[in-house]
Amino acid sequence: MNEFEIIEEFLAIKTKNRKDVIQGVGDDCALLKVPRGQRLAVSMDTLIGDVHFLSNANAADIAHKAIAVNLSDLAAVGAEPSWITLSLSMPEFDQQWLQQFHQGLRKMVDYFGVQIIGGDTCKGPLSITIQAHGFVPEQVFCRRSTASAGELICVTGNLGDASLGLQIAKGDLDVVDEEAKQYLLDKYYKPYPQVAAGIALRNRATAGIDISDGLLADITHISQASNVGALLRWERIPLSDAALKVVGKQQLMESALAGGDDYQLCFTVKEDELDATIQALETVGSICVPIGRMTGKPGVRVLDNEEEVDIAHFGYQHFS
Amino acid sequence: MNEFEIIEEFLAIKTKNRKDVIQGVGDDCALLKVPRGQRLAVSMDTLIGDVHFLSNANAADIAHKAIAVNLSDLAAVGAEPSWITLSLSMPEFDQQWLQQFHQGLRKMVDYFGVQIIGGDTCKGPLSITIQAHGFVPEQVFCRRSTASAGELICVTGNLGDASLGLQIAKGDLDVVDEEAKQYLLDKYYKPYPQVAAGIALRNRATAGIDISDGLLADITHISQASNVGALLRWERIPLSDAALKVVGKQQLMESALAGGDDYQLCFTVKEDELDATIQALETVGSICVPIGRMTGKPGVRVLDNEEEVDIAHFGYQHFS
Repeated sequence: MNEFEIIEEFLAIKTKNRKDVIQGVGDDCALLKVPRGQRLAVSMDTLIGDVHFLSNANAADIAHKAIAVNLSDLAAVGAEPSWITLSLSMPEFDQQWLQQFHQGLRKMVDYFGVQIIGGDTCKGPLSITIQAHGFVPEQVFCRRSTASAGELICVTGNLGDASLGLQIAKGDLDVVDEEAKQYLLDKYYKPYPQVAAGIALRNRATAGIDISDGLLADITHISQASNVGALLRWERIPLSDAALKVVGKQQLMESALAGGDDYQLCFTVKEDELDATIQALETVGSICVPIGRMTGKPGVRVLDNEEEVDIAHFGYQHFS
Repeated sequence: MNEFEIIEEFLAIKTKNRKDVIQGVGDDCALLKVPRGQRLAVSMDTLIGDVHFLSNANAADIAHKAIAVNLSDLAAVGAEPSWITLSLSMPEFDQQWLQQFHQGLRKMVDYFGVQIIGGDTCKGPLSITIQAHGFVPEQVFCRRSTASAGELICVTGNLGDASLGLQIAKGDLDVVDEEAKQYLLDKYYKPYPQVAAGIALRNRATAGIDISDGLLADITHISQASNVGALLRWERIPLSDAALKVVGKQQLMESALAGGDDYQLCFTVKEDELDATIQALETVGSICVPIGRMTGKPGVRVLDNEEEVDIAHFGYQHFS
């Protein structure tokens, strides 16, 4: 098969064209229509084999995650996802792998109602770059730079699960409890981006971000962009039963605060909006857990029952 | 430096925001506005080191080419380029390389008036994925599938130069004439996409494509999508003095017909539109050279003064 046939057969998920797609896969360009009154939100992420995912993972899970990661960025600004472009580089033509990848893509595309509108494929080290596109009404969106001191910091779900799942997948963490093990592996391999929660937060959150690099790294982005500080309370961080079961406090803390890959949203709300926000997120099957507060003092700090946690050694960054 | 600092310093070319950019680099998503009455055209291409470009090439030239390749796809549909997203994967942090890359980006971004609105960077094998975005008025664009038998096939410039330049760069072709050598190397390393020509062709060409994979491969796309054949005449293919000087007929033919990387446009026009099209392209500093005709007989054929050329062994495709 040549690259065009691979795109046609495995990457271009055949569905009825969305109304906003005038021309999809198969030409030099896709031609698209952004609905009147809507802004276009776009986000691009590259996932590299054995950097962002395990190359020997099931290809359907790799596809799932590649889509999830990008839709999560749209969720952070409250955008409704519409289109996906996808570039796949792989070392050799592997039909079975591509079929699995295709199945993973199809599930996500169907689940979120998005259309793959273009892309590229070529021979090279295993790597996937996806750009997700979505719509957000004019002047209604969360930014990172709009949090204020005094506002509550909230998250949409449990933290640390994906990081523990990765440790299990890599063989660094041995878990006897089969149910907990599978739960954590699923959280790592198949995260679901908080798209509906992001849309529900449009008119409520004052700032927002998705937790991809870990809570501490991501709340630091909001703090720096908004020029305020953040004080988090360890005892309020939502944790799954599985996570509580398989590791001790120190490892749990590191996973939940710095682990990344959970793709929950972290956002700020005014205190008098909290109850309404909890209700709004409940309506879309999500939760709203207050875990701290923006402060006037720069920097990010974590208290564990009023004791300051040493967070200096947490975190991971490319090239640092 | 961490990945965010690299994006900030080297990849986010600082310019005044375009009016259609509400939020550019530095957040989860870029937020954009497509002008009323315009369609959005998008194209994504990945360039991998030592597959699509020589890894040891000057980084400014690599950046130039990565942008050029993507804008060329926009040119093919007559779109006016607006925004670029860019994901760069590189084996290690190399400040000098990044500075050169930055300079190459800046030149192209300034030249074409586009803005880099987002992207990603990570550690991995050298690879660049770019998505180019542009605008095209509603219902005015070239497609591949709209050529008809009897229409003229034209190109916007010389073919084969880039392929010969690549052979020189790889050391496979030894050229004594310094001027010809530099000319051909420049055509390979720094192609200029036919953006203005694409816009000029909006209301004239019946179908169009950019010649990235080689004339034969790309005219085959038009033929198949339009369900017609193509008959090309070798003696009409425009060739540079440099190309004519450095290789014999056989090698020239292979480079011009199958070589790729020239990023000229190939398009079809009705015969009675030819003179107007020649004038329209001249106005924007381009040319219009008729090189053949769409036919009712399926397939692509090339005649060399009425003798059929054996083209079966030409061409290159990933994974084939």
